[in-house]
Amino acid sequence: MWISNKLMKLLQMDVPVIQAGMAGGITTPELIAAVSNAGGLGNLGAGYMKAEDMKDSIQKVKQMTKRSFGVNVFIPEYPEIIEEELQRANAWLEPLRKELKIKEVPKPKISTALYAQQIDVLLEQLVPVCSFTFGVPSKEVVHELKKSGIRVIGTATTVEEAVVNEDRGVEAVVVQGSEAGGHRGTFLKSGGQPMIGSMSLVPQAADEVDIPVIAAGGIMDGRGVAAALTLGAEAAQLGTAFVTAEESGAFPEHKEAILQANEQDVEITSAFSGKPARGIRNSFIEKMNIHETDWPAYPIQNSLTKDIRKEAAVQHRAEYMSLWSGQSPRLSTSKAAGDLVAGIAKEVMKLR
Amino acid sequence: MWISNKLMKLLQMDVPVIQAGMAGGITTPELIAAVSNAGGLGNLGAGYMKAEDMKDSIQKVKQMTKRSFGVNVFIPEYPEIIEEELQRANAWLEPLRKELKIKEVPKPKISTALYAQQIDVLLEQLVPVCSFTFGVPSKEVVHELKKSGIRVIGTATTVEEAVVNEDRGVEAVVVQGSEAGGHRGTFLKSGGQPMIGSMSLVPQAADEVDIPVIAAGGIMDGRGVAAALTLGAEAAQLGTAFVTAEESGAFPEHKEAILQANEQDVEITSAFSGKPARGIRNSFIEKMNIHETDWPAYPIQNSLTKDIRKEAAVQHRAEYMSLWSGQSPRLSTSKAAGDLVAGIAKEVMKLR
Repeated sequence: MWISNKLMKLLQMDVPVIQAGMAGGITTPELIAAVSNAGGLGNLGAGYMKAEDMKDSIQKVKQMTKRSFGVNVFIPEYPEIIEEELQRANAWLEPLRKELKIKEVPKPKISTALYAQQIDVLLEQLVPVCSFTFGVPSKEVVHELKKSGIRVIGTATTVEEAVVNEDRGVEAVVVQGSEAGGHRGTFLKSGGQPMIGSMSLVPQAADEVDIPVIAAGGIMDGRGVAAALTLGAEAAQLGTAFVTAEESGAFPEHKEAILQANEQDVEITSAFSGKPARGIRNSFIEKMNIHETDWPAYPIQNSLTKDIRKEAAVQHRAEYMSLWSGQSPRLSTSKAAGDLVAGIAKEVMKLR
Repeated sequence: MWISNKLMKLLQMDVPVIQAGMAGGITTPELIAAVSNAGGLGNLGAGYMKAEDMKDSIQKVKQMTKRSFGVNVFIPEYPEIIEEELQRANAWLEPLRKELKIKEVPKPKISTALYAQQIDVLLEQLVPVCSFTFGVPSKEVVHELKKSGIRVIGTATTVEEAVVNEDRGVEAVVVQGSEAGGHRGTFLKSGGQPMIGSMSLVPQAADEVDIPVIAAGGIMDGRGVAAALTLGAEAAQLGTAFVTAEESGAFPEHKEAILQANEQDVEITSAFSGKPARGIRNSFIEKMNIHETDWPAYPIQNSLTKDIRKEAAVQHRAEYMSLWSGQSPRLSTSKAAGDLVAGIAKEVMKLR
């Protein structure tokens, strides 16, 4: 059966598949354009990008597709940099730096200007769609984006967070199930880290908010997308499935690790960034997880480990890289992104 | 669309809904018969039952339905009883016993005869279906049950465990997603407690084993059952959804707690039984979770807290009861079980 709904009309999609705006160089313009050209919604992961780079990437995407696409931005956090915490963390990280022959110890800086600059780029470039993670923009920012004709999507990991998104005027909300790879989008920290599985989160969120719900977490193929629609979502967002795609900018070691992994190989760790995220277990996690609750807050810890992750990639040492993955790595393929989207579209129509 | 598949033929079901064999008095003969009479598969939770009581209940069910039904049995564990551990645990539990005016401190006994007696009852009563949790019966037991025409179902929380079930000759396997309420069925303890969400577990298990897969965890309504089928399962097993059913033997406080809860109110605890289980957060969990890893092993800890849970129920004090629930309590209703099954059947046909 042919699929169409409010969200797909809003975002101008022909296939209810959104490629997650993963940060860290994975979402190349080629990947984004391939997804959008196949009828899905490609997304630039601009979380850590400088405004200038973000602008460049958006312009490249525009040259490669005439279709709708999105840009994902992080809601910033400004924790205090505590020298004592840095020293402690750097002492724990020191053996890894030594092994990788990294001489310089990074000095974390938190840019308080970046977020506003990124919003300016969204407005200036009139991107078709933007999405936010780690919080919700203010009502004013949401209003300004919408006034410019930009569609605004939020992220939630609980029903409560979905309701906050709706209250701020966001037009659709990604509900991130516990299966999801990469960072948890949790921003209300009332009762620890909520890890609600997609089977529970999607229908409960869909019942509670009036805006369209986008299911994320563990979805890799037509079965997952069709199941998400059945549960009440109007589209599914896939991250891990696109990490291994031909056009993805993920390091070959990252792609290979996902292609070889099973569902028990992934776990949640705060060691890479100071914020819980799901990735494939490796030496970094095994060595560093014992300090789990003692790392500096996100994004300070992220700055501290950046050089290690980067140098590990250069040296092809997967054991010290952040190998983000959801809980369904057995379903990964190395298809071209357009073929992946087309295959899903076909399967969904068969299953619905 | 009308649903039929290999599993439904095997278990003689008209609706792809299995009522989980929850232990502890929830699965009354009335509940089991209501589910089976509506075309689903009712299940007696015989985990902690003496052979004689199990036999009585089975005979009552037989009088109330001519249709297929099942009996769930636990694979036993025989941990060493360590006096020091008991004393420590009893000291932690003492304030609760005092508050509830419980005078006697229980002496845990582990019956090494119960499991064989339960298997004998299954064979003697020629129950249509039996299922196992916390492990897999030996090939010999599986063979003997099957030879008698009894259908044998296993439980898994990972793909690896599903494969072990298949290798032992089990005819179908329940894959329990992280959303599920009550005890985790995990029996291979290689890498901690696997918490794989249903969206990931169901398709990956369905791809790996040839026997039919039954999805469990977070499924409460027609959307969940239809999604489970879409993901590759041949039926769904619902626990929490039946706890609040009219015919359920759950304490009124337990039912009410589920009806009032949301997805963030449930968490995993080992404090009630020594084995991880999901229930609604209450004072018992809040007070006792700090000793999480120091309790005696299952089922010793279960014996130690039994009097507390029982007496709390008598005194209508939900704060010290085990309020098992999955992650979808917002979807709970207090319908009669037959109406619940019929409603799901209708919704599934509409959605598929």
